[in-house]
Amino acid sequence: MNASLIIEVSLTNIEQHILELSRIGNLGARREDGFLRAAWSYEESSAMEYIRDVGTSGGLRAAYDGVGNLFLNTPDPAPIVIQVGSHLDTVPMGGLYDGGAGIIAGLEAILALHKFWSSFGCMLQLVVWRGEESATYGAVCKGSQAAFGLNDPRILLRKFEGTTLEEAILGQGFDPGYIADRRPTLTQTQVDAIMAHIELHIEQANMLQAEKKDIGIVTSIRGAVRLRVVVTGEAAHSGGTPMGAKHRRDANLAMAYMQVELDRLANQFIAGGADLVQTAGVINSDLDYNLHDPRVYENAYTKVSPFGYFTLDIRSNQAATLREYVQEARHLIEQQASKLGVSVKIIELNALTPTESLDSQLQDILAEGCKELGLSFVKMPSGALHDAAIVASRQKSDGSPIAVAMIFIPCKDGISHNPKEYTSPHAVQKGAQALAWVLYRLTSQKDRITEL
Amino acid sequence: MNASLIIEVSLTNIEQHILELSRIGNLGARREDGFLRAAWSYEESSAMEYIRDVGTSGGLRAAYDGVGNLFLNTPDPAPIVIQVGSHLDTVPMGGLYDGGAGIIAGLEAILALHKFWSSFGCMLQLVVWRGEESATYGAVCKGSQAAFGLNDPRILLRKFEGTTLEEAILGQGFDPGYIADRRPTLTQTQVDAIMAHIELHIEQANMLQAEKKDIGIVTSIRGAVRLRVVVTGEAAHSGGTPMGAKHRRDANLAMAYMQVELDRLANQFIAGGADLVQTAGVINSDLDYNLHDPRVYENAYTKVSPFGYFTLDIRSNQAATLREYVQEARHLIEQQASKLGVSVKIIELNALTPTESLDSQLQDILAEGCKELGLSFVKMPSGALHDAAIVASRQKSDGSPIAVAMIFIPCKDGISHNPKEYTSPHAVQKGAQALAWVLYRLTSQKDRITEL
Repeated sequence: MNASLIIEVSLTNIEQHILELSRIGNLGARREDGFLRAAWSYEESSAMEYIRDVGTSGGLRAAYDGVGNLFLNTPDPAPIVIQVGSHLDTVPMGGLYDGGAGIIAGLEAILALHKFWSSFGCMLQLVVWRGEESATYGAVCKGSQAAFGLNDPRILLRKFEGTTLEEAILGQGFDPGYIADRRPTLTQTQVDAIMAHIELHIEQANMLQAEKKDIGIVTSIRGAVRLRVVVTGEAAHSGGTPMGAKHRRDANLAMAYMQVELDRLANQFIAGGADLVQTAGVINSDLDYNLHDPRVYENAYTKVSPFGYFTLDIRSNQAATLREYVQEARHLIEQQASKLGVSVKIIELNALTPTESLDSQLQDILAEGCKELGLSFVKMPSGALHDAAIVASRQKSDGSPIAVAMIFIPCKDGISHNPKEYTSPHAVQKGAQALAWVLYRLTSQKDRITEL
Repeated sequence: MNASLIIEVSLTNIEQHILELSRIGNLGARREDGFLRAAWSYEESSAMEYIRDVGTSGGLRAAYDGVGNLFLNTPDPAPIVIQVGSHLDTVPMGGLYDGGAGIIAGLEAILALHKFWSSFGCMLQLVVWRGEESATYGAVCKGSQAAFGLNDPRILLRKFEGTTLEEAILGQGFDPGYIADRRPTLTQTQVDAIMAHIELHIEQANMLQAEKKDIGIVTSIRGAVRLRVVVTGEAAHSGGTPMGAKHRRDANLAMAYMQVELDRLANQFIAGGADLVQTAGVINSDLDYNLHDPRVYENAYTKVSPFGYFTLDIRSNQAATLREYVQEARHLIEQQASKLGVSVKIIELNALTPTESLDSQLQDILAEGCKELGLSFVKMPSGALHDAAIVASRQKSDGSPIAVAMIFIPCKDGISHNPKEYTSPHAVQKGAQALAWVLYRLTSQKDRITEL
């Protein structure tokens, strides 16, 4: 059997899918305006339908689960499933490739294999997870978590552009009851059938570009703790009230000191060898939060600030680091608040433990595939969280985890969550070829691999 | 002539005006919700109409100037005018007494005098200036500046709640052309006729309360420079992008460092004996700015921040300090921007030079009046800017400035620009009595005083 024949994934198809997806959810007249395909939006559903139609035209079978995750399967039922997954939703003003590249590559890799074999003795399955981005509804990996019954039901009440997540799910014709009841959409039998799960994704950092590598073989995935820090001061006249915490309870100033001190604390951890990134992504400008709590609008040019908030995204691929840092950060925030005479509430929005190690055997197979295909590669951690981490956290009936791998492809200058996000169709093709190679190897070695 | 008879200003009337004004522009069902009477709003006009009606019922003559400032005059024309002024607009979620106390006290002081004398040989005049607060339309003392042709015409394009200032002025039936053409609404003859201008205002700080004084005799008025600092970074994935300026151009983090360093710089100036207060009142939450430039909404929990802005209100009663500090602050902001890899634009919104010294003869008369009336007093600078400072900046034909005085009365805990702003009717009455005493003295000494 000629492996090099199988893995010739179509560049033309990839280019076409990029073009088609670029027309769904484009916010403005100009490409620079970026995308928005929110979780369970009309745009996300449209993008999924496009992928579904391409898949079914190519002979795959489509099914949505209870919350609207899309599954495209090779047509012959089989007890073993090799799963490829990613997502099609975007952050506001996001890019086309975050999620989209993995779906396009997965679809074309499966179609390339399916073209030459009508049966593998196992099922190849593309999963398009709903709502991976926390930028909409403030909760991450919502679709993949729903598949395994992992979401906190309270996320259903969170809003994006005035709509609750519950309304959005209902609006696309699916059942938020799964999330409300923490009821998985996948049965344990379906989970047990998953021999391997692979997600291809753009790197969202610039190591591959800097080191001129085609492929990143992901070794670990950073976990994330997301906090909202809500600071209450006291309004006072900006001209008449002397400076200093004795006279002012200034929410804006307290937030600035908190951020600067948090930046220093994080850099201390990093200098000590810890894996850590920290970002205050939003200050006072979350429209949905402000609709619910409009106190930021009490601020004025000539007032000592009575109210403010910022979000903190804290990530590490080390569970202990994440735990320890978050504890110290909370302490620091409270210290600064007390020093500056403001009161503070720290709300945990998400907490996802790191995947400290992805499946090592799958990493080896992927490395082998890259060598066979003449693709340069490097082993690396994933800074960003992905649906694959949710899958990797799940256990089968026998207590073993689902074997998970991730393939990174470069993106231009490492820019992501930005309208300028870009990766070439050729880079997607290379990733898809590596993916197809691994899928083929797994199908042909399925008996050995199920021993994993 | 019995001065103590003249200056018995009615407490009942003051209480009634407070009650009536508290019904105009109250935002919500609860007193705690605070007021909004924006510049040239229906609410501001309604409050002015109430004052006009009380004045005309008491025998005063009412006239609006071209931009809608209200003048209430004692009925007999005279070539000499003794002017009392303040304003009735408020900041959003503001209080009743900032501006309002001065109008109520001025009205009742003039009515108290008018009741006993039909002619003074000079005209007593209450001016209700439009739109003193910069919180609406981002420009300060708009009415008083219009009276003297001092506004920057570009403020007409600034918006509040989606309406331009030009539309707001037209909407209340007045002519923005005065501002557009820098054409004063008052003639030079009218300016030359002003013998003295007195503004009573709540202190908006807590020195009078702390020192248990009835009256503050204002010696100087802080000038203000207001800047908007607009920071542009680069969106990047919060999980994949390492920390540090080498990898990130983080607008939010840069703003935090700027604010902390500015706080330190200001405290250095103060430690060196300079008079200075600095406030970053608004971070990312100016709805009107965001309508015009919605880039803050590109920020997301999982993005390195691409964009942010904050406002700086910098005040001093020393012109040289203000100039020097603003220059150093600009330099510091640019340094921090360059250090953190972001770009920055600093836009000057307002610049008003301090009134380093109010009229000393009027201060003496006021001190004398307090002693006569048994009111305790202290001489003090004004931290806040007031319309009186605009009047004090104007020259008569002979090159002399208009003689200006300010009377401060205490407000509870120094809280202002806050729904909790409070001053007792009795405190307003004491201020009004002092004001009436000065007015009476000026009318009876007008020949001497015009020599000022």
